This record gives sequence, C-alpha cells and structure tokens, in this order.
Amino acid sequence: MSGLEYQEGRTELETLGEFALIDRLTDGFEIHRSSTIKGVGDDCAVLGEGEEKTLLTMNTLAEGVDFDMMYTPLKHLGYKAVSVAISNVAAMNGTPTQVEVSLSVSNRYSVEALDELYAGIRLCCERYDVDLVGGNIGSSRSGMVISVTAVGKAKKAEIAYRSGAKIHDLICVSGDLGSAYSGLLILEREKVTYQANPNFQPDLDSYDYVLERYLKPEPRFDIVKSLREKGVVPTSMIDVSDGLASELLHVCKDSNCGCEIYEERIPIDYQTTRVCSEMNKNMLPVSNALNGGGDYELLFTIDQCDYEKVKDMEGVHIIGHITEKGMPAVMVTPQNTTITLVAQGFKAMDR
Amino acid sequence: MSGLEYQEGRTELETLGEFALIDRLTDGFEIHRSSTIKGVGDDCAVLGEGEEKTLLTMNTLAEGVDFDMMYTPLKHLGYKAVSVAISNVAAMNGTPTQVEVSLSVSNRYSVEALDELYAGIRLCCERYDVDLVGGNIGSSRSGMVISVTAVGKAKKAEIAYRSGAKIHDLICVSGDLGSAYSGLLILEREKVTYQANPNFQPDLDSYDYVLERYLKPEPRFDIVKSLREKGVVPTSMIDVSDGLASELLHVCKDSNCGCEIYEERIPIDYQTTRVCSEMNKNMLPVSNALNGGGDYELLFTIDQCDYEKVKDMEGVHIIGHITEKGMPAVMVTPQNTTITLVAQGFKAMDR
Repeated sequence: MSGLEYQEGRTELETLGEFALIDRLTDGFEIHRSSTIKGVGDDCAVLGEGEEKTLLTMNTLAEGVDFDMMYTPLKHLGYKAVSVAISNVAAMNGTPTQVEVSLSVSNRYSVEALDELYAGIRLCCERYDVDLVGGNIGSSRSGMVISVTAVGKAKKAEIAYRSGAKIHDLICVSGDLGSAYSGLLILEREKVTYQANPNFQPDLDSYDYVLERYLKPEPRFDIVKSLREKGVVPTSMIDVSDGLASELLHVCKDSNCGCEIYEERIPIDYQTTRVCSEMNKNMLPVSNALNGGGDYELLFTIDQCDYEKVKDMEGVHIIGHITEKGMPAVMVTPQNTTITLVAQGFKAMDR
Repeated sequence: MSGLEYQEGRTELETLGEFALIDRLTDGFEIHRSSTIKGVGDDCAVLGEGEEKTLLTMNTLAEGVDFDMMYTPLKHLGYKAVSVAISNVAAMNGTPTQVEVSLSVSNRYSVEALDELYAGIRLCCERYDVDLVGGNIGSSRSGMVISVTAVGKAKKAEIAYRSGAKIHDLICVSGDLGSAYSGLLILEREKVTYQANPNFQPDLDSYDYVLERYLKPEPRFDIVKSLREKGVVPTSMIDVSDGLASELLHVCKDSNCGCEIYEERIPIDYQTTRVCSEMNKNMLPVSNALNGGGDYELLFTIDQCDYEKVKDMEGVHIIGHITEKGMPAVMVTPQNTTITLVAQGFKAMDR
C-alpha cells in the first residue's frame, strides 16, 4: 500500500507557491522534439516546424477555489472557462482556433445544469470563432473541475513572448484593472449577507460592470486585431490573470530587465473606486489593480518607434517603460514615491 | 444568487451515461474552421491544413473515481496519466509529440508527493519521446484531478478513424484483455482486508502482471510501429479503455456495420483467468475482457488483403470480422452460441 509514502517528511505546497512549484516539478524535463519551439514558461507552448506556428495552452477552474457555485451562473462559468483559456492565445498575439473541454462533475449536478454550462461554452466558442473539437466528461467525488485546452495559430514573426521586452520599451495595458477583483469582493459580501438571512435579495444592479468583469471576462482579441491592423508587434506580452504586479514581474524576469510604471497612468474604472471606498476606507483601488487579478487584460511592451501608432489606440494605456537589467520593477506614485512591486502585495520604499 | 437554479426539474447524470451525455451537450456546436478535419467523436481531434495533421486529445483522472490513493503509487499515477492520454494518439495511428499537464490538488498533498507524480510523468515522456510543454497547477477543495492534453502527428492518409471499418474487414486486438480490470479486483480485495486489519501485509507478488497492467498501462506504439513497417494502415482503430464490447460498439456505430468475434480468439492472460477463479467461480475471464476496461490495447480492423502481413505479427490477434450494415455486434462462443454485445454486460441469445 505504497500510495501513502508521501506523508513522511513533507513540505507543504503553500511554502512554494504555484510558479516556484512548477519550476521545481518541471526542472528535469528536457525538450527533444524539433517541433517544440517553446515549452513550459509562457502563456502558450509554441509548436510546429513551419512559418505558421501552433499555440497550445490549458486552463483549469476548480469549484470552491476558482469559482463559488453560490453566485456563479453555470452559463457564465462555461463562457469563462473557454474565455480565460483562449486569453492565453491572445497573450501570444495569436488567433484561437479550437478548444477541448474536460469536465469532472459530482452527481450533485444534473443534466440540465450541464446544458447551461455548455450553452456558455458554446456562446464563447461562437463569439470568438473557435471550434469545440473534443474533451471528456467524468465523475468527480465532489464538486466540479473544468479543464480547457485551447489551440491557436500565429505567424512565427508575430508571436509575442514574455521574454522580448528591452530597455526603453513602452509598457501598455488594455482596458482597466482591478474591476474583476472588485466584482468578486461584492459577490463575497452579498454571499455573507445572504447566508445570514436567506430572505435577503441582493441588489447588484449598480455593480453591473465589475460583476460582469469577474463572472464573464472577455479575452482581448480586439486589441490583438488593432495592433495587427496598425502593424505593431508587441516586443512582449502576457495576460493579466494574477494582477498587474505579478505579470510585470514575469515580464521583467523573463526579459531580464526592470520596469517603471506610474500609478496615475494605471486605468481604473469608477465602479472599482466606488467598491473600494464602500468596502474599507483603507482599501486602495490601485491595490486591486496590482494584486487583484482575473481581469484578463493584455499587458504588453512596444518599441518606442511604435509610440505614434499606439498612443491613441482605443482601450490601450501607456503606463510606463522598461528599465535596464538589474533594476527593480517599481511603481512611482503621484507624490513621487517609488514602490517596489512584489507579487501579491507591495511595500513602500523612499525614493 | 442564480447558481442554484439548476436544482429544479433535474435529470440525474446516471440516466444518460458518458457518451449520450457528450452527444447531448455537444449537439448544437458547429465546426467553422477549415483546419478542423475531425472534431468531437474519435480518440483525437484531427487538425491542420497540410498533409501532416495534428492530433489533439485530453484525458482526465480524478481521485476516488479513476484512482484510489490507498493503493496507487504516485509515480505510477503520473506515468499512467500521460500513458492513457497518448494512447489516444496511438488509437489514431499517430506519433505523440507533446503533452501538457493540468493538476488540481488539495493541501493534503505535499511537494514531495508531487515530485513523485512528476517523476512518473517524466518517465513516460522519456519512454515515448514526448515533450512536456506546459500546463498548470492549482488548488482543489479535496483530492486530486489530473488532466493531460496530448498532441501528436500523423500523415493524412495514415490516420485510422473509428468510422472506416467495412464489411469483411478482419478485427484485430493487441496484447491481452481483462488483465487491467483483474489487477483492480485484486487491489480492491487487498484494500478491504487491509482496512479490516491494518497490520495485514498484502502478498501481491503472484499478481505482478495484472497489477502492472492496471497501475501502469503502456500505450501500444510498438504495434503502431509494426503496422507501419509492414505497410498496413488499419481501416479503423480505437484503444480499449472501456472494455472490448464498448469499443466494438463504437466502431460498429461509427462505421455503420455489424461485427462477429469468436470467444476463443480473445486473448486472455493466465493471471486473469486465475484471478477470476479465485474471486468467484461464476466470474468468467471473457467478461473481464469484454467489460473490464483499462487495458489500453489497440482494437483495429484491416482489409482482408492485409491478412498475410498481420497474421504472424507479434502481439496481434485476429478475433473476428466486420459484418454488413444492420447486423448486430455479436460474440460466438465455443458452443456456437451467439451473444449480442452490449456496452457493460452482455446478454445471451440463441443462434
């Protein structure tokens, strides 16, 4: 009965965190296939021998961790499962083409529940012109786990990796940040109220934007298209799934550079600001933008010579620039204080 | 709080079964991309515009459903997760090239446990010359769910679909059947004994073959290679994950034909026979072969003109032939009784 050996001399998963854990677990793996252009370590793997590359990515949503059935409509959940997977294809500057969906569900779910889930999957596939080409459905002991594999395509010369940013490049972000996390805060607040009083009818109308951002994020293929139309290939790109700070640190680490962003340039919606002030007068909207995550906006860098093409692009904000190797990733406040960015939370430092 | 709507007017998942459920859920989906050659409904999706096609498949193993940590060594589990995913590539007559692994784990697992799991993943990747190119690791509320996406390649003309069998084709199967399920029966028996008496030390040595078949199945790329060397392209192929009966019915349905197999031709290992006689004198080894599943052998059909090339091929057994449209899928016993095959269990019928 050897499956229990792992209980001796254990290191808890929390002591590492996802990225260090992935680094450790995939450390000894080698790439042997000439068709593997990029393996572990970006938003997608890049595969194929020719000029047009295949992009491959997986994303998993687990009940009780990534979503709460108490406030997640199944149709939204299906939509989001596909949406966040193909967002990784957007983050490589690619076009999504196919998805597969693997579902593990307990018998707590009915056939009608899965009809709803798949209606959402279908809606997202139709909106982004993606074919559902396979997957599987199996039982789980409890709850639901949805894994989506997304396939995309991109011309070799147009692929934007995390590793291509270089000194003086401009840092851009699409849409606004922190709104998805603000939506989650509202849903969690209403859940607590509902649990205390099941007759309570939450009034969510005035939070429509932030709720939609959390429950049904859209991948930014409109931005990918705008950049293509202007002939701009980002020097690096990543999607904002874990918060701006974490994503900037990925780009800086992989591109071997530092960065400087300006707090007042970070796009924040007024609903995000309102939610923060309602929740706690010490909660800063910029903190939700830096650490909230779940926005699925695109964070990218461009060469300075593309500035004219990008500066008036709808939905794109230039928030800073790349600094040289050895420099930290920092945010400058309106008071000219420099804050060093850390993944999850940040600490102030005098300039 | 709309997530709970699904609890009204419910149809239980068990009333449909996996295949009918997939049919229902994917019914309204349409294929729009010219690069989608085959979508839902075979062992892999077939993608790409050129002569060399990309094969894509996902497979998920959920704790408590597909594996029991009580008797599953984590290294074996990692190996099996990759093995059964790439087995779907073998079932299309393809070559596996890359995998991605998505893992949802509870904090019951330690870093060292995942080291073991990934050691098994790595071993399987190395053995079958497959690159690990991505995936993700996240938390789960309880237990472990492993989803593996496998990518492969195959020349367009060499792809074996489930739908290509035609009248008079010979039905072949690799290896032996029913041994994986026999291994599971032994493990379940020892688990019950162990739970009753934790000092009990199971003696599993004499069951080594069937245990390995269950815990660490091998995809049959050796058979794919042999067929290629002999210049044989199967007219149809599928891997035996759910039992011979279920797989034959898939081929007959998709190829719009019937079939006739001969009981005494079905390859069964002596350990399978021994386990059956130990378990219950009424347990027939052929029943494990038909309905047990988990063998991951290849079931394929060949044109009669390839008979000479295949008849002495190592590890390949010719067990019957394809019959015309409208005929049932049947097994003929040594006593010349004809049994109609049904997925999970079978019923006798006078000839």
